[in-house]
Amino acid sequence: MAKAPTTPAAPVVNPAEQVVKLLTTAKQTMVTAESCTGGMLAAAVTDIPGASAVLYGGYVTYANNAKSRMIRVPARLIKDYGAVSNQVARAMADGARNTAHTDFAIAVTGIAGPEGGSEKKPVGLVYVAVSSEHATLVVEHRFGDLGRAKVREASVNAAMDLLLVVLTDPQGNDASRLS
Amino acid sequence: MAKAPTTPAAPVVNPAEQVVKLLTTAKQTMVTAESCTGGMLAAAVTDIPGASAVLYGGYVTYANNAKSRMIRVPARLIKDYGAVSNQVARAMADGARNTAHTDFAIAVTGIAGPEGGSEKKPVGLVYVAVSSEHATLVVEHRFGDLGRAKVREASVNAAMDLLLVVLTDPQGNDASRLS
Repeated sequence: MAKAPTTPAAPVVNPAEQVVKLLTTAKQTMVTAESCTGGMLAAAVTDIPGASAVLYGGYVTYANNAKSRMIRVPARLIKDYGAVSNQVARAMADGARNTAHTDFAIAVTGIAGPEGGSEKKPVGLVYVAVSSEHATLVVEHRFGDLGRAKVREASVNAAMDLLLVVLTDPQGNDASRLS
Repeated sequence: MAKAPTTPAAPVVNPAEQVVKLLTTAKQTMVTAESCTGGMLAAAVTDIPGASAVLYGGYVTYANNAKSRMIRVPARLIKDYGAVSNQVARAMADGARNTAHTDFAIAVTGIAGPEGGSEKKPVGLVYVAVSSEHATLVVEHRFGDLGRAKVREASVNAAMDLLLVVLTDPQGNDASRLS
C-alpha cells in the first residue's frame, strides 16, 4: 500500500535571523538590555551576519546599579518591586530605547537560579519586555526550575519571540498572538 | 607487555569559572566591553552561578557610536585607526572600567566575518584588552578566516585567558605568559 504523502517539514527559521531581516528591510534599529540572560540575547543577534546594520548594541545590566546607571532604571523602582518584576522589565526596555535612541529595545530580567528564588518569585520567573514608539509590552513567564542554562535559553527565545510579534504587528492589532 | 602508566588527564577547568572564583576571593569586580563577540563574553561569565558577586555588567558596543556613547571611546580614535585596532581595544577597556567603576574591564574588537575584512585587516583579526589599575594590556590575534562562529569563540577564549593572566599575575612580573 502506498504511503500517505508526507507533509514537507517547515523550514527551520532562526528567530534572530528573522529579526535582523525585518529590521534591515524597515531600516530600523534595536538595542538589548539583559539581566538574567547576561549577554546571550545580544550574542544571538550578533551571531547573524549583517546584524551591524540594525543592532546599536546591548546593555548587560547585571548589578542593580548597572540598571540605574546604564539605562536609567529608577533605583526606587528596584527597591519597591524588585529587580525581577514587570515594572523593572518595562523600565529596562524603555530606558534602553531612550538611552540608545533606537526604534526598538528588548529587555529581560528573571531568576535563572540555582540561587535567588523565593516562594513569591521562584527560579524560572522571567519578564521579557519590548519597547517601541507605539507601546511597551511586558510578558511574564514561569518556566519553572529547569536549571540555569535552560531558563536562560528559554528567556532568550521568549524575548526574541516577543520582538518578532511586535515587528510583524507593530500596532498590536493581533494581541492574541501574545498568549 | 604492560602499558606505560598514563598521565592523569588535567581537570577540565572553565576559564569563566576561574575568573569568577578569583574575583570573588579578591572581592573585586569586572565589566565587559564587546564588539565582534557581541555579548558572548558577558554570557560566558554570567553562565557561572555567583557571577553577580563580581560582574557589574557589560557593554555590547556594536555600532561605532555605541563605543563612543556607552564607554567614551573617542570618535577621533575610531576614525584614525579603525574600530578594529590596538588603540580602540585599549580605549574600550579603559573606557569601560572608568565608566563602570570596576576593578577590571575586558574588551574585544575584531572582524568575525564573513564581511568586513580587507588585506590589512583580514577576517580573524581580533584585539583583546584588559584594563586594571596597574596597566592596560592589549593582545593582537590573527585567527584566520575560521568562519564567524569560530572566530567569535576563539575571541572569547583569548579574552578570558588574558584576564586570567592578569588576575593571577596582577603586577605583570611574568610577561612571557602573554606570548
